[in-house]
Amino acid sequence: MKCKKCGAKASVNMRQHKLALCKDHYLEWVPEQTERFIKKYEMFTHHEKVLVAVSGGKDSLGLWDILVRLGYQADGLYLGLGIDGGINYSHESQRLAQKFADEHNLKLHVVDIEQQYGHPIPMLAEISHRGYGKPCAVCGLAKRHEMNRIARDLGYDVLATGHNLDDEAAVLFGNTLNWSSDYLLRQGPVLPSSDGLARKVKPLCRFYEREMTAYCITRGIDYIYEECPFAEGSQSIYYKELLNQLETTRPGAKLTFYLRFLEARKSGNLFVQHNVERARLHSCPSCGQPTTTDDLCSFCRVIEKAKSVPAAS
Amino acid sequence: MKCKKCGAKASVNMRQHKLALCKDHYLEWVPEQTERFIKKYEMFTHHEKVLVAVSGGKDSLGLWDILVRLGYQADGLYLGLGIDGGINYSHESQRLAQKFADEHNLKLHVVDIEQQYGHPIPMLAEISHRGYGKPCAVCGLAKRHEMNRIARDLGYDVLATGHNLDDEAAVLFGNTLNWSSDYLLRQGPVLPSSDGLARKVKPLCRFYEREMTAYCITRGIDYIYEECPFAEGSQSIYYKELLNQLETTRPGAKLTFYLRFLEARKSGNLFVQHNVERARLHSCPSCGQPTTTDDLCSFCRVIEKAKSVPAAS
Repeated sequence: MKCKKCGAKASVNMRQHKLALCKDHYLEWVPEQTERFIKKYEMFTHHEKVLVAVSGGKDSLGLWDILVRLGYQADGLYLGLGIDGGINYSHESQRLAQKFADEHNLKLHVVDIEQQYGHPIPMLAEISHRGYGKPCAVCGLAKRHEMNRIARDLGYDVLATGHNLDDEAAVLFGNTLNWSSDYLLRQGPVLPSSDGLARKVKPLCRFYEREMTAYCITRGIDYIYEECPFAEGSQSIYYKELLNQLETTRPGAKLTFYLRFLEARKSGNLFVQHNVERARLHSCPSCGQPTTTDDLCSFCRVIEKAKSVPAAS
Repeated sequence: MKCKKCGAKASVNMRQHKLALCKDHYLEWVPEQTERFIKKYEMFTHHEKVLVAVSGGKDSLGLWDILVRLGYQADGLYLGLGIDGGINYSHESQRLAQKFADEHNLKLHVVDIEQQYGHPIPMLAEISHRGYGKPCAVCGLAKRHEMNRIARDLGYDVLATGHNLDDEAAVLFGNTLNWSSDYLLRQGPVLPSSDGLARKVKPLCRFYEREMTAYCITRGIDYIYEECPFAEGSQSIYYKELLNQLETTRPGAKLTFYLRFLEARKSGNLFVQHNVERARLHSCPSCGQPTTTDDLCSFCRVIEKAKSVPAAS
């Protein structure tokens, strides 16, 4: 197969786009496309300060690399979750995030959950009795909370995450199987800022996971290969597998599923614009972030509970 | 496993309902549930005349049997499609539909497409060049047209089809993957009558396919086991397989998917009430049925084209 742009040997073939590219043109194409998505969905401008949530994985490091190459003001935020899982997961992912920042002379903010709140994520999850024996619910809660906190405290205009198409399609699939109005009416490449929450954007939402892998490998970015050890057997991985089956027999099915959803949302022909029943938000008396309860927000309740438990040295 | 009602040996176990029943109680339960759905979705009353679309398969014969047992005024309509497929499909299905009607002393209207329009369905499909080499599109068109025609001409209040949950969930799944507003906003257990089209109802829409098989076998109804020979490899069978995978790991997933969709439709929190862009309908100058074109409806166009082709003796 030959590169569509120069005729040299192609190194990436994207069936869903009927497009094959050589290494050099692929490395040009990915940022071009990202720029197109940033503009199309009005994510942010060159005048705004972007905080990239960096996990040390291919998507977030790829995103940071692309934004910097496109000339955006993009700093990184690494959250130390304190997950070991027998593979030194958090330590290794932090090392790779820091290595990338150092090599490219970029600013990386690091927040360590254990240092900040006395316990790592798995322990906070255990103390809080949330998440049915898995730390994923508390981890998601903590990440959202801390990303918002840092973005607000350090004056960033927008928070960018590395969610790719496979992530977004899997979330959409799950929300669709349950017809969760609240989630379906909010899912999209941009979540506008509101009530003291930072604007959130997903510039990679139209790239397949394998396209991001190809980008990082071709670009020589050193990222953590392992998934989080707690991800195994998760709902979202199960949905990804089902969607991959669909994609195998119908190339482009995943992209169509996601894009037609966005079109349907925009057209106003299928969905209502806002969920009329959405709960009113209050300010958490401890952290100031918005919450649906009258008292502490969910994250501060977890932290409050954890205060009574002594830290493991 | 024991029957939940009488403690005898259970013969049907429904994981999604956490309910096991013996033969006798299962044969009571199915009509009770059907009656509940008919009332819940306001399908029809005992004063209305129901025309049941009967194919000779388990769903439609099961439906007819249930409606008659519940005391509804239900006659049958069999459409002779002229499909052989090496297994004498139409002939055999008609024989079984007629046998059921005769044994229960019921009225069965029979319309033979070839007698009525000069060609059987596979030939009409070939002449019309519709459906990418498969007669399914023309078959669906003809069935909808003829069912409407007979219901209107013979003065039936409502047309009932044997679509089960597996059918409905697969259609919903397909419409969801494409986010087809028009279809999503119309799908449901009841399609109200409008513009000269009969009201259409699906009293079995909450029964799993295997529940209908169990009903027919337990009740001793002789039905055609074979699927239509043209169904093989169809989109809807593919979607059914995917949903069956989901159901295997998450019993009840299929039912939840369908029911939550209906709830979301009803709540007004997710979907708009009507598609604002829906095309205006006109009366077909040949048959009088509504159509989106200014001229002949799709079915009459097929028939018009077929008139120039001599019948195969």
